[in-house]
Amino acid sequence: MTEQSQSQGKNLILRDASTALSMTQDQVMRKLKNNELGRLSIDDFKSTKKTPIIIVLDNIRSLNNIGSVFRTSDAFLIEKIYLCGITATPPHKDIHKTALGSTDTVAWEYAEDTIELIEKLKVDGVKICAIEQVESATMLNNFEVENNTKYALVFGNEVKGVQQTVVDASDTVIEIPQYGTKHSLNISVSCGVVVWDIFSKLKPMNS
Amino acid sequence: MTEQSQSQGKNLILRDASTALSMTQDQVMRKLKNNELGRLSIDDFKSTKKTPIIIVLDNIRSLNNIGSVFRTSDAFLIEKIYLCGITATPPHKDIHKTALGSTDTVAWEYAEDTIELIEKLKVDGVKICAIEQVESATMLNNFEVENNTKYALVFGNEVKGVQQTVVDASDTVIEIPQYGTKHSLNISVSCGVVVWDIFSKLKPMNS
Repeated sequence: MTEQSQSQGKNLILRDASTALSMTQDQVMRKLKNNELGRLSIDDFKSTKKTPIIIVLDNIRSLNNIGSVFRTSDAFLIEKIYLCGITATPPHKDIHKTALGSTDTVAWEYAEDTIELIEKLKVDGVKICAIEQVESATMLNNFEVENNTKYALVFGNEVKGVQQTVVDASDTVIEIPQYGTKHSLNISVSCGVVVWDIFSKLKPMNS
Repeated sequence: MTEQSQSQGKNLILRDASTALSMTQDQVMRKLKNNELGRLSIDDFKSTKKTPIIIVLDNIRSLNNIGSVFRTSDAFLIEKIYLCGITATPPHKDIHKTALGSTDTVAWEYAEDTIELIEKLKVDGVKICAIEQVESATMLNNFEVENNTKYALVFGNEVKGVQQTVVDASDTVIEIPQYGTKHSLNISVSCGVVVWDIFSKLKPMNS
């Protein structure tokens, strides 16, 4: 056990609900300092077991969105991000603005052709889930995860969405149900929503 | 029934899973055009029953984040957004860039003092949930919603988070569990994650 993970363990114990019950209200509601959050170091991140989720960015235009996907992927220990087609790659100052260093932790690779990548991932047994609005999409709340399965979540261009050919090559299509006037959510928000939902279903978490 | 909601009804029928089963794979995976998504008109949005969630933005600095919260709020029929302290208000071209018109649908109001607003909401019976990292926070996955309860979700400044005095005045604190190296998620991503999670728990949705 490294010094880092020891201090993380202590922190988790300190934050245990039963300990909290014996605290006064003021102590309980105290905001945690950054060094009390028990976050991983870059080295610990690299060696930590990852969530069986891969993210595929299919021709994402916005550098802010790319950076934000990195930041979300760091938080949920995403295995790898594939940056496809026109999607820019780190290092880039506008990716850094929203990634805030998470390009140094999350594994990533550039792939020119999204279809070729997907076919390769399928050979490796990865289940391909395009996040799109199609006729028979599975609504996110109804999507059930399977044990011992690795998922690739494909997010598409801000205007055009996931390419139809990529949708056709996917194993399933997941849609975030939406009830208002706009056609879609921002892609970095969509990524957060879908990753959180599937992460929660994959991994029973402790309080 | 308006013409809009009639066409929405037809669209929902068209997308029924049993209909989809009789389609060929190509038809089933066909991406939907914007006019097939059954989205509401602005007028229909105004009169539609809202989700019992209010969003409170406590001193948000980034105009992109504010706009993105509007877009997410449109998608999940959020009742109202309160823009507090230094949080900028529409109309503003940099809010519009990410809100994409949702400032015309989602109800909003400026409140100078977040604490005063929270005390007023509490008098109205609204349950105040700060989204923060505190000693005894309830992890989002463990947060249970109550029936017939309206929630105000308070999101804080990009650097400082929700003010300690606002945390102290809240009924409960919800934390998004995070496992990587970074201290927090982007605020528009956090908003998407928490709104989706609570929305899913509040409202049993159809496929």
